[in-house]
Amino acid sequence: MTAPSPAAVKDTKSPPLASELLSGALMLTMQRPERMNSLSEEMLAALQAGFDAAAQNAEVRVIVLRSTGKAFCAGHDLKEMTAARAHADRGRAYYADVMNRCSELMQTIVRLPKPVIAVVEGLATAAGCQLVASCDLAIATDTATFCTPGVNIGLFCSTPMVALSRNVGRKQAMEMLLTGEVIDASTAKQFGLINRIVPKDYLEVVVRKYAETIASKSPLTLKIGKEAFYAQAEMPLAEAYAYCANVMVENMLARDAEEGINAFLQKRKPEWKGE
Amino acid sequence: MTAPSPAAVKDTKSPPLASELLSGALMLTMQRPERMNSLSEEMLAALQAGFDAAAQNAEVRVIVLRSTGKAFCAGHDLKEMTAARAHADRGRAYYADVMNRCSELMQTIVRLPKPVIAVVEGLATAAGCQLVASCDLAIATDTATFCTPGVNIGLFCSTPMVALSRNVGRKQAMEMLLTGEVIDASTAKQFGLINRIVPKDYLEVVVRKYAETIASKSPLTLKIGKEAFYAQAEMPLAEAYAYCANVMVENMLARDAEEGINAFLQKRKPEWKGE
Amino acid sequence: MTAPSPAAVKDTKSPPLASELLSGALMLTMQRPERMNSLSEEMLAALQAGFDAAAQNAEVRVIVLRSTGKAFCAGHDLKEMTAARAHADRGRAYYADVMNRCSELMQTIVRLPKPVIAVVEGLATAAGCQLVASCDLAIATDTATFCTPGVNIGLFCSTPMVALSRNVGRKQAMEMLLTGEVIDASTAKQFGLINRIVPKDYLEVVVRKYAETIASKSPLTLKIGKEAFYAQAEMPLAEAYAYCANVMVENMLARDAEEGINAFLQKRKPEWKGE
Repeated sequence: MTAPSPAAVKDTKSPPLASELLSGALMLTMQRPERMNSLSEEMLAALQAGFDAAAQNAEVRVIVLRSTGKAFCAGHDLKEMTAARAHADRGRAYYADVMNRCSELMQTIVRLPKPVIAVVEGLATAAGCQLVASCDLAIATDTATFCTPGVNIGLFCSTPMVALSRNVGRKQAMEMLLTGEVIDASTAKQFGLINRIVPKDYLEVVVRKYAETIASKSPLTLKIGKEAFYAQAEMPLAEAYAYCANVMVENMLARDAEEGINAFLQKRKPEWKGE
Repeated sequence: MTAPSPAAVKDTKSPPLASELLSGALMLTMQRPERMNSLSEEMLAALQAGFDAAAQNAEVRVIVLRSTGKAFCAGHDLKEMTAARAHADRGRAYYADVMNRCSELMQTIVRLPKPVIAVVEGLATAAGCQLVASCDLAIATDTATFCTPGVNIGLFCSTPMVALSRNVGRKQAMEMLLTGEVIDASTAKQFGLINRIVPKDYLEVVVRKYAETIASKSPLTLKIGKEAFYAQAEMPLAEAYAYCANVMVENMLARDAEEGINAFLQKRKPEWKGE
Repeated sequence: MTAPSPAAVKDTKSPPLASELLSGALMLTMQRPERMNSLSEEMLAALQAGFDAAAQNAEVRVIVLRSTGKAFCAGHDLKEMTAARAHADRGRAYYADVMNRCSELMQTIVRLPKPVIAVVEGLATAAGCQLVASCDLAIATDTATFCTPGVNIGLFCSTPMVALSRNVGRKQAMEMLLTGEVIDASTAKQFGLINRIVPKDYLEVVVRKYAETIASKSPLTLKIGKEAFYAQAEMPLAEAYAYCANVMVENMLARDAEEGINAFLQKRKPEWKGE
């Protein structure tokens, strides 16, 4: 959550989200540091557009979501939210629209047929913490921090906890939600919220290595696997097996699996065609 | 589980559960140390009544469940259970009644619109371990221990595992359930069963700090958030988002969120009205 | 995954799975080290038969699944899978059959009314890692390693992830699945995939101790508890409690619970009859 000075807001001219494609890895960089990259209407729209475009672009193999400034993302924009209280319906329609757009963004990341890696420098709070939890993988610097402090302002982090509680155990999620306290990167890793902690000086090389590793896989295989992962996670065991056994059969019959297995048996590097 | 001497049982005159309200925190203290605070009919009824009253009492912001003596709680009262074998139905109706009352108590804690913190000193076994798992948060001393030893007496900890397996991973829960072995506080924290380990000398101050922190939040916000947390945890992702987005809208329209956000933007302390 | 030399395959005459009953513990040992104990048709059939027989044999109280050679199990047999591409349907029927048999084997372990302990020496990859995840408990040497590397050969580990994601958090499972990288025993324990890490010199004594401990419990109680554990894990809370309360009542009325509780109250060792 953030309360920027009006001046800071108006001076901003660059796009809220920078986009750069590096060897198959799309770097999406939130660049509203003066607003702590909060999920303003502008940022929500830019992220939705960025991920939608990434889904369509065949050159994008993996997406890296990162930030400039001292916060990864500070959650919803409280100024915008507060302004809507002046509406005839006290903001009800506006809040419903913002919450639905934000929830749609988070689910877009989950449904995206390509892996998404969050790179967390600085603070990730409320819906910013939810953004980290919604990505497939998360790498953080050793000074990154995380919290769901909505309870401090009378607004429980109810949508953030949907993603949080699918990464973190119940008691640990409840501690974050009920106290609103900040946890450090080490605690976040113990809780299961992030995959790796990297000193700032090593961050670039580690992020590139992960992005390259994943970009080197068959995009079809990644798409099949990511979709199946989140689908089976919500099924009872027997149903999950019936579903995934079928996914495996279709995957086996794809050209890339034939190529990949042949390459393995012939001890050579596979050449993917994404089909 | 416990097998107290008959003398110890009869001498007990104080109520099984002490109740004290301290700055919005209701301290519920199980005080049948000579019976290891086992969930006898008397204790079950006292806990149910204690939590029910706490739910209704507007002065109660958070509940702290603790104990006297060397055990937090030793599970069901095996003497009472065994006595029922003399019934015409070999105890069937009695066991069903006890199990239903115990399960109702555990679900009362989960459904209670106020956070519940377990403070674990000494042993928490079987339904005593379930009690810890059922609370929203748990703080333990460094000498606290935990186990689900029903398998040792031919009675698998089947109701305890409902709560346990919603806190602890499958392999770790199964180890506790199949071996019946005792784990220490450090292992319990690793497993996700508890939030904090505190040396005995520091316990009081840490428990008070947690209770005060949570009691300082809007009771309406806590109620909204706790209820939504456990509800969304059982839903598929899309349903959880639809449900929680709506919860957020209602929460935004509440007076306490307006006050909390205004106070945040104005850099002052909020004043909650619980509405 | 493994690509053995044809010579190695043909020389094999011993059964793929050795079976030995030691004081109630059935030791099932995969012994195709030259094929890295891959889940060939031969091995799949032997494991299915081994577990089915163990379920029926009243002398078997607990099953220990282990291996010879440097791999615990290397997943599906890629040579057999590749050979099926020559079929008129490009292998579709064959793959469906293999995947269904493999999924059935994994679910047989889960449904088996007796605890199953995986003892992991060396590499457990793909469906081999799934085998570890499917067992109730897992003990590994400190040099054991784990991975789900299907993504490297264009075949996402979709069936393995059904078991993996029911042991390991989402971000951690996704890291294994998307990168295909190998994790060591220490990481596997942190992730929740295994219960214990034991130096090789201590492995035998620790495995025996676990097997003996579990074999000393009432087989009826273990059966009741294991079945209820996996059943309740898939239910909403209220349903899980209603179901398990009923399981507890039936368990209380069994002869072994009466004997176990009496023995506990009388401070003597119980004698189980499994009824």
